[in-house]
Amino acid sequence: MSRNSRRLDQIRAVAERLFRDKGYLATSMRDIADEMHLRGGGSLYAHIKGKEDLLWSIANEATDAFFAALEAVCAQPATPYERLRAAIIAHLLVITQHLGAAAVYFDEWRHLTEPRRSQFMARRDAYEKQFQTLLEACVASGACHASDTRLATLHLLSAMNAMRHWYKPDGRLSAQQVAEALADMLLHGL
Amino acid sequence: MSRNSRRLDQIRAVAERLFRDKGYLATSMRDIADEMHLRGGGSLYAHIKGKEDLLWSIANEATDAFFAALEAVCAQPATPYERLRAAIIAHLLVITQHLGAAAVYFDEWRHLTEPRRSQFMARRDAYEKQFQTLLEACVASGACHASDTRLATLHLLSAMNAMRHWYKPDGRLSAQQVAEALADMLLHGL
Repeated sequence: MSRNSRRLDQIRAVAERLFRDKGYLATSMRDIADEMHLRGGGSLYAHIKGKEDLLWSIANEATDAFFAALEAVCAQPATPYERLRAAIIAHLLVITQHLGAAAVYFDEWRHLTEPRRSQFMARRDAYEKQFQTLLEACVASGACHASDTRLATLHLLSAMNAMRHWYKPDGRLSAQQVAEALADMLLHGL
Repeated sequence: MSRNSRRLDQIRAVAERLFRDKGYLATSMRDIADEMHLRGGGSLYAHIKGKEDLLWSIANEATDAFFAALEAVCAQPATPYERLRAAIIAHLLVITQHLGAAAVYFDEWRHLTEPRRSQFMARRDAYEKQFQTLLEACVASGACHASDTRLATLHLLSAMNAMRHWYKPDGRLSAQQVAEALADMLLHGL
């Protein structure tokens, strides 16, 4: 990896954290430069055109991670139930591994301007549609029950995604343990 | 209701909507005045000291509504399972009835300054503790299963609260239907 691309990764990591902690609107290029101990915001512009390019880059990083995890699950032979459970766990693990990017993916993406905003929403909708298809296959197989699969998918996705608000990487349970416990609660209830 | 308190309610309703749609930071007193067709932001100050007072008032309105709903549920004779299910439905109905205030309660409260921020968090924590107690009673009765009631409570609360992101008041199902369907998915899984 070149020195430039390493520096860009560092900038993105700082931006992710600040966008998550303070929100995109309240974070300035100057704040990012300050966190990196760069004098002024000027030298950031050698690496990135502006704050929205960072937001866009982080949103795509998160989208790519969710798609890659789901594709890996779907490439494995499995029953519809096993596949849905594995997809839930994979989705939750992406959140635990990309907490900053997840904040952009779920909340801060609203600040993207067109056409990026629409492009982002189209990819996210396509991803969510795949989850609905997995759930429908599971219901068709008889292993799951949902009288309204659209409502069930909305609930499933939003309940998984809500984990970003309370998951702590240094908590008493590992990411894998939390993901498996949540998958079981979502599939089997309380 | 006096003319002044009616006007304050109107201001609060507009602020709730703007805080939800644009976020607290991006909403100015001028935006609120514009929405109300008042010239400038000046005349708002006859009713409210400033933007944070609105945030505080809305946060308390939401907190009061959640506590009142839970107290009404706990005042009824019921089994632990019936009580937990009724509490989940009551909580979800508060969200559907106060979507703007819910956005403040769940997201925008972060912009409260001290000591209000701590006061808000203390009341919210007390409310969440009551939910954990209801769940523990349900587990003790054998009607629910949760090997880790703290994790289960975090999941339950965050999954309920995530409804604010997708619930639409003009959707094909009534608030009551959505709340009951969600309660069943949370308690019995998919």
